[in-house]
Amino acid sequence: MITIIGFGIRPKHMSLEALEVLKRADKVFLEAYTNVFPSSFVEELKRIIGTDDITLLKREALENNLDKFIEESRSKHVALLIQGDPMFATTHINIILECKKKGIPCKVLSGISIYNRILAVTGLQPYRFGRLVSIPLLSKNFMPSSPYLKIAENMRSNLHTLVLLEAVSDTEFLSINDAIDYLLKMESRFRMKVISDNRFAIGVARLDYDEGIIKCDKVLRLREIEFGSPPHALILLADCLHFLEAEALIELLSAPIEVKRLVK
Amino acid sequence: MITIIGFGIRPKHMSLEALEVLKRADKVFLEAYTNVFPSSFVEELKRIIGTDDITLLKREALENNLDKFIEESRSKHVALLIQGDPMFATTHINIILECKKKGIPCKVLSGISIYNRILAVTGLQPYRFGRLVSIPLLSKNFMPSSPYLKIAENMRSNLHTLVLLEAVSDTEFLSINDAIDYLLKMESRFRMKVISDNRFAIGVARLDYDEGIIKCDKVLRLREIEFGSPPHALILLADCLHFLEAEALIELLSAPIEVKRLVK
Repeated sequence: MITIIGFGIRPKHMSLEALEVLKRADKVFLEAYTNVFPSSFVEELKRIIGTDDITLLKREALENNLDKFIEESRSKHVALLIQGDPMFATTHINIILECKKKGIPCKVLSGISIYNRILAVTGLQPYRFGRLVSIPLLSKNFMPSSPYLKIAENMRSNLHTLVLLEAVSDTEFLSINDAIDYLLKMESRFRMKVISDNRFAIGVARLDYDEGIIKCDKVLRLREIEFGSPPHALILLADCLHFLEAEALIELLSAPIEVKRLVK
Repeated sequence: MITIIGFGIRPKHMSLEALEVLKRADKVFLEAYTNVFPSSFVEELKRIIGTDDITLLKREALENNLDKFIEESRSKHVALLIQGDPMFATTHINIILECKKKGIPCKVLSGISIYNRILAVTGLQPYRFGRLVSIPLLSKNFMPSSPYLKIAENMRSNLHTLVLLEAVSDTEFLSINDAIDYLLKMESRFRMKVISDNRFAIGVARLDYDEGIIKCDKVLRLREIEFGSPPHALILLADCLHFLEAEALIELLSAPIEVKRLVK
């Protein structure tokens, strides 16, 4: 059987249920591709589970050897550890469906996701978020407009957007600054009022890691900040805020008092 | 100091970090109002934490005695346990902000929410959900149109909606059936194509409890099901599904093969 386990953003977010399963599992894999996390996390996971035997999996390893991976679980109890909530990476549904087809039991233990943590550190309300959007690594030849257009839809409904930015390694990732540049570029093409220098946004780098940065300010100022290594995320604030949201941004994130003007 | 702790949907979802804090806390409160859960959960929490001393709090108790509650934490380490993710109930931001004002340290430990679990059990993709909507207890004199209108916006953007249904006790709650009736009533007034007998939806009762029911079918058929005690939730599926979503609904929830027609 396979148990797909989200351990949360940090190892300490792991659930009691997950730990119980991991201690009993015959083999523990740790997926090290949909997220970039410090190597200290691997050591911490080993210590918590009480094993040295955790096999790191890269994306290609899992996707190209899915059959082999699943076959191994026919006779063994395989645990696949994933940062955050496993269901935030759409690839894991493939494993679940393959197991179903092959008659291999497969269970998912949810983990605390970046979305859960964003709510806790910003005080923004879950009811005020539109659809989740992600922006892939961009280049001159690859600059899709769909992330911009999806944010535009949220904005039109006066909703915040949590924008996840792709990171494949410590050096190859989309930074908050790059994401802002991309959005400004799209803005000048589509003019759907998604972003301007004066739009309030939140730059989130390495949330819940030891040296994370989270900053709420106008886009103009966020662009000047050096956020450092990945993972990065960006929250675009809707045109209007609930008064408790404005207060929370000021109190919890030291946002400029100006955000109060967004309360209507 | 106060630590606001989401324990997840079931006690076993509790994080290692939360357990550590709870074992050290001087006083543990359990909020028993934003969610309705079986009394066995209280026993399980006591066993896990290793204490008999958990004080149950009702909504009024917390809201009317917020000052007293916060003052108690000036000299003691108070832990406030909440089902799910604390930030899904907007009331908790009040505690955080009051603490800030009074100079009392306050921290939030996130918990696995119904949204996390919904993704795991349905296989629906997080990128396909619009804003979260909740419907309060309704009566002849209280029938707001806003939940309907919010779902309509999601539907217009071809997004699913997770609809949380209010429950204040085992007998006083909005059932899936009542919610469907409400939406059909609103539909006949506004005609925004939110719901019809043939719309596919998912009825979710007591998710992750020992005897939960989760059923994906046409609204027409969901209306005939007796879902039993709360909490209930409803997921309205968008007009179109990703092909992996359709496959997941069939494989994981035994949805009718017909949902494949929604894949475009």
